[in-house]
Amino acid sequence: MGILVVGSVAFDSVTTPFGSHDEILGGSATYFSLAASYFTDVSLVAVVGDDFPEQYVEFFQKKGIDTSGLQRSPGKTFRWKGEYGFDLNTARTLATELNVFSEFSPAIRPEHRDLGYVFLGNIDPDLQRSVVEQMSRPRLVAADTMNYWIDHRLDSLKTTLRLVDVLVINDAETRQLAGEPNLIRAARTILQWGPRTLVVKRGEYGVLMLNSKSIFGAPAFPLEEVTDPTGAGDSFAGGFVGYLAATGNTDEAALRRAIVFGSVMASFNVSRFGTEGLASLTYPEIEARYREFRRLPHFDDI
Amino acid sequence: MGILVVGSVAFDSVTTPFGSHDEILGGSATYFSLAASYFTDVSLVAVVGDDFPEQYVEFFQKKGIDTSGLQRSPGKTFRWKGEYGFDLNTARTLATELNVFSEFSPAIRPEHRDLGYVFLGNIDPDLQRSVVEQMSRPRLVAADTMNYWIDHRLDSLKTTLRLVDVLVINDAETRQLAGEPNLIRAARTILQWGPRTLVVKRGEYGVLMLNSKSIFGAPAFPLEEVTDPTGAGDSFAGGFVGYLAATGNTDEAALRRAIVFGSVMASFNVSRFGTEGLASLTYPEIEARYREFRRLPHFDDI
Repeated sequence: MGILVVGSVAFDSVTTPFGSHDEILGGSATYFSLAASYFTDVSLVAVVGDDFPEQYVEFFQKKGIDTSGLQRSPGKTFRWKGEYGFDLNTARTLATELNVFSEFSPAIRPEHRDLGYVFLGNIDPDLQRSVVEQMSRPRLVAADTMNYWIDHRLDSLKTTLRLVDVLVINDAETRQLAGEPNLIRAARTILQWGPRTLVVKRGEYGVLMLNSKSIFGAPAFPLEEVTDPTGAGDSFAGGFVGYLAATGNTDEAALRRAIVFGSVMASFNVSRFGTEGLASLTYPEIEARYREFRRLPHFDDI
Repeated sequence: MGILVVGSVAFDSVTTPFGSHDEILGGSATYFSLAASYFTDVSLVAVVGDDFPEQYVEFFQKKGIDTSGLQRSPGKTFRWKGEYGFDLNTARTLATELNVFSEFSPAIRPEHRDLGYVFLGNIDPDLQRSVVEQMSRPRLVAADTMNYWIDHRLDSLKTTLRLVDVLVINDAETRQLAGEPNLIRAARTILQWGPRTLVVKRGEYGVLMLNSKSIFGAPAFPLEEVTDPTGAGDSFAGGFVGYLAATGNTDEAALRRAIVFGSVMASFNVSRFGTEGLASLTYPEIEARYREFRRLPHFDDI
């Protein structure tokens, strides 16, 4: 089944201990789409300015991504500038220029309304909700959010959460959203607000997935080359939703495999700058890394 | 086989979001001994002052811990005061009074020199080395250290590492010790300095174990009640070395099971204040939690 993703397409300027790159292709919908494109059809809904090069549109299309929902508005494309310190764990935002993104109002084309899987990237929760309301009964809605919306739009966010099946956020956001320092109790609180499943991203420490019945913990793939963490969370989400959409299965076992496929895509992404790590993979490479993951947490019964 | 543990026995004053406790029993050798006592015989080598209550000595003895190596010196027992913030992840040290610990020079009694397993708690690396040199060919030496010794006694620490089979440290210490931001590359560097196995503790994020051939990642047990993280690392080490010593097996499969038993003991420890979480467990409870751990990271092959 196909996926509709709504989010940002941006120019990122990123400095890590391994170098700097100016105005490279980025944004939540970019990373998500590239990662998901290895699993199923993806339709991208986003806005770019008149400075957005046609070559990037062609890059998406070459990956099989449907760009008919990529709006072009007069003005400049969203820009983000950030840097990562010694341990690469947290980005420091140096500048954010919303530009055309500040007026973004996603209009879903009629031919996209029947898509079965929806990923709501980290945008205003009002817009996230308007996207779901334009769709005709999607099978699964997954969403991201961030501290800004928790701080400034909590009521809207909680209304949106009623429409969300799987919320994918990081551990600090989980605690902040629930107002509870214990992660597991925070997760239980959020699960009462709508989502059936909460996926807690913990960067280099891996992922926890929680629902009313079980908890799944997956370590991140241990990498000797981490070059640029930008887009790790959205690449994770792309592999996660991509695998679910490809198989049409959302039972516990499928969700756990999807978490590992998400971790696989994040691990490829962070090994290179920008979108390079996701640009030219093959599905056998992805499966091979999934199998390497199998050995990582294995221990015997007693 | 029995374990010799050398480290601190202290009075801790701890504040967490759930309360404060003044001058309760603590110290690295305390937590290690209590956790390991559920698996095998433990001989404790440490120093306390003349203010150390006999009831604590009896508490150790009731847990089957051999306290014949617990020296009593004139003066006050080591005291530590710390507090944990909202997310309980890091302790802020408010005060450290070494007291009798500042003159600690562990003399290993003749009847302890044949013990097969040694755990060197976080003390001066010169003292750690002197302990190993007093032992007669122990089967396995595990050690902890901390940023203070990396900053101030790096040469001595590296000399000690030549005698250590398993180094158990946290992730920040791993990076700092190797001077390398990438955790996996940092681990590879440290593995060239002596230890065959490096165990990287990552607090609520679990543990990575690395050797020249494989990497094992274990998430921490997800707990709804984390009351006091003090001693989590030493409880982990106690379960880890305790299981290895009990089975006499140090192959990869045994090391992985030992990591999980260590995680089990840490999870019991942090659920209550001070040593309460380790005071009155039963081995069936420990095995039951090991089995719960089995479900946590399980996912199917594709």
